[in-house]
Amino acid sequence: MCTYLTELEAPSLFKKLVSLDEAKQIIAASFPSKPVGKENIPLEHAYNRILAEDAVAPLDVPPFNRSTMDGYAVKAEDTFGADENRATALKLCGHVRVGEPPKVTIEKGTTAEIVTGAPLPEGADAVVMFEDTVQKEDTVLIHTSVSRGENLMKAGSDIHKGETALRKGQTLGAYEIGVLAALGVTDVKVYKRPKVTILSTGAEVVEPGEPLPAGKIYDINAHAVSAAVIECGGEPVNLGIVEDESQKMETTLKQALSMADMVITSGGVSVGPTDIIPKVLNTLGKPGVIVYGIAIKPGKPTTVAVINGKPVFSLPGHPTSALMIFQLLVRPVIARMARRPAEKPRTVKAVTATRMFVARGRRTFVTVHLEKNEAGKFVASPVPLGLSGAITTLSKADGFIEIHESRQFIDAGEEVIVHRLKPNLY
Amino acid sequence: MCTYLTELEAPSLFKKLVSLDEAKQIIAASFPSKPVGKENIPLEHAYNRILAEDAVAPLDVPPFNRSTMDGYAVKAEDTFGADENRATALKLCGHVRVGEPPKVTIEKGTTAEIVTGAPLPEGADAVVMFEDTVQKEDTVLIHTSVSRGENLMKAGSDIHKGETALRKGQTLGAYEIGVLAALGVTDVKVYKRPKVTILSTGAEVVEPGEPLPAGKIYDINAHAVSAAVIECGGEPVNLGIVEDESQKMETTLKQALSMADMVITSGGVSVGPTDIIPKVLNTLGKPGVIVYGIAIKPGKPTTVAVINGKPVFSLPGHPTSALMIFQLLVRPVIARMARRPAEKPRTVKAVTATRMFVARGRRTFVTVHLEKNEAGKFVASPVPLGLSGAITTLSKADGFIEIHESRQFIDAGEEVIVHRLKPNLY
Repeated sequence: MCTYLTELEAPSLFKKLVSLDEAKQIIAASFPSKPVGKENIPLEHAYNRILAEDAVAPLDVPPFNRSTMDGYAVKAEDTFGADENRATALKLCGHVRVGEPPKVTIEKGTTAEIVTGAPLPEGADAVVMFEDTVQKEDTVLIHTSVSRGENLMKAGSDIHKGETALRKGQTLGAYEIGVLAALGVTDVKVYKRPKVTILSTGAEVVEPGEPLPAGKIYDINAHAVSAAVIECGGEPVNLGIVEDESQKMETTLKQALSMADMVITSGGVSVGPTDIIPKVLNTLGKPGVIVYGIAIKPGKPTTVAVINGKPVFSLPGHPTSALMIFQLLVRPVIARMARRPAEKPRTVKAVTATRMFVARGRRTFVTVHLEKNEAGKFVASPVPLGLSGAITTLSKADGFIEIHESRQFIDAGEEVIVHRLKPNLY
Repeated sequence: MCTYLTELEAPSLFKKLVSLDEAKQIIAASFPSKPVGKENIPLEHAYNRILAEDAVAPLDVPPFNRSTMDGYAVKAEDTFGADENRATALKLCGHVRVGEPPKVTIEKGTTAEIVTGAPLPEGADAVVMFEDTVQKEDTVLIHTSVSRGENLMKAGSDIHKGETALRKGQTLGAYEIGVLAALGVTDVKVYKRPKVTILSTGAEVVEPGEPLPAGKIYDINAHAVSAAVIECGGEPVNLGIVEDESQKMETTLKQALSMADMVITSGGVSVGPTDIIPKVLNTLGKPGVIVYGIAIKPGKPTTVAVINGKPVFSLPGHPTSALMIFQLLVRPVIARMARRPAEKPRTVKAVTATRMFVARGRRTFVTVHLEKNEAGKFVASPVPLGLSGAITTLSKADGFIEIHESRQFIDAGEEVIVHRLKPNLY
């Protein structure tokens, strides 16, 4: 089943499709998807990055007992028994300001004015709110009982010194960045984004912006795949269009491999006379091509190689096929290399509007549009793949249905799981 | 109810809280949240930006009738009647390559070899797959009937010339960027990200990285709020800590307003003697302060001003309060200025684990942790706000429950809506 096609010297001899599941197993066995490294970056650039080491608190947060009210710092036991009708009189012996160390110590029978956020003076263990007091010159009448710790936030009550405040692997959102700031952190160690070089091949593609000669089309894949790479946590480097010629391809693939952690090509591996990429890949390093064609529709002419520890995905030229294969096979690998937390598949249940057929013996993905019926249930209607050459299919589709190769069709009205195509953009 | 406090000269006289709903109405009436402008950016930087004008196709996609198979270009009517047993013989008169204009014209009774992606030659209106043919020297035996348009993708069938391929306001994901590339676009007009200057005030805060004197804490808010601004589509400019002193505050606020589309301050508007920010704001332009305190918990000491068409949000100093108010009041305004599509509130139903009380007369937000019970239902347990000084509260909480000011409490076991706190990060 999962034989490694490492001896592949003449890939055209090995045109044996593997199933989608086999392809995933082969990729997982040949490429461990390790993180590509760590880097220190300033806190202000850390949003949405992945923490690469535990954040252990070097100090208590807050660093001192902090008043959470405007009022008077007291010894709680001095207030016991006081209420609205019966006051305890304390001698006012000072003021505590925010941002300054207290200059007073609270002895039995004394108090100090304190404001929200100010450090509790030594000797005090609670704060009485202004509303519960009456001040008469140097005497403060306390009209309530407070317990120890009341109206204050104890040192370390938010984060203890030595505590692991955030764990390796956490995604840094606004709250996590707040925690790091509270610890006094200015630089944070995060996982590097895997660098992915992207190139398009094919005699028919032209860079957007260039004049379009007869018989040519603008290159879609390098641009769409670059955006998809950003979306899953990678850093794309778009090398543009490379001619489908052995020597040029070899030079470019060598360069692409040397500058990145992964290479994605598209086009040039479709049926036809010029299967140059797999041949070139097999000369560049071991194990070479590990998947050569997948029993899947769309996306059959997909090649996967590992060259000296770096994966190379050669996607079909058709944009819909290329992007579907990207979502199914490439995205999870980049996400793991980036150490992004496992993405929950965003799925929704629906009933099918029509019967949908399986491409014989191939895992079949049908792009669908979702609408709610009167009963509030989602109904999934196929968006024709436009023979998989179309790019608008995916921008119009809400998701896709996966039909296992063992089935012949899915019937109209059958309940299915629809995978949403568009991740939530932030 | 929604009186405009434009005549506010001495804000301390106007310490009248408005409800959260009134605050939202006052903000909406005083500040229309218009987009801040448009800019042309290269396609490779357009991921996750918002299209600022319709993308009208300047060409057909594909630009020509394209073969979707390797085979022979034919006149469909020449094949009518052919099947496995009965072949039609056509004269081979040439080859059509990918990326080149065809050099042949298909006359009745003739055919040309064609590969996937190549342009259909003049005269042909269908393609017969190789598998259904036998070639003998210059004669091709066709063993199937094809209808007009079979095995080809017609010019403009993906996108018609003149068609609006993408609409103003669409978020540019991988598929949309693919559509733009297909149209030959290299620069794309997107809405500018609103620039938001952020500053912290308070005698107790110190920049992370600096030594921490007794009585001081590290500034959390400017860093956490900066990340939150990125998250909703804005561009933060963190001005750091500003002393709570009128002249310095005036200079800094003027600078902050001149360089940005919005200003966010935090701290310095808590209860206490130094309500400098609202006073300064009222001297800087009209209408000045429009909201001065909100009947909400946490977040009561929130001030909102509009200065010559630019909003200024002064958030409480407590990180939890500041970030809750950011989510409730500021985030929707930034998202509208950025023209990001309305965010669906990410909510989940849960039952409460304990009775939760309302702060008297104030809309109360209780941060909660979610767990599933045996029945598979979510149970929401309060995460104590840590007296709203804590930053860890929000990084530990899964969401919050909103309790209307008209209620006294929510009972244990009551069904509630929990708003998820963390948006999906990409």
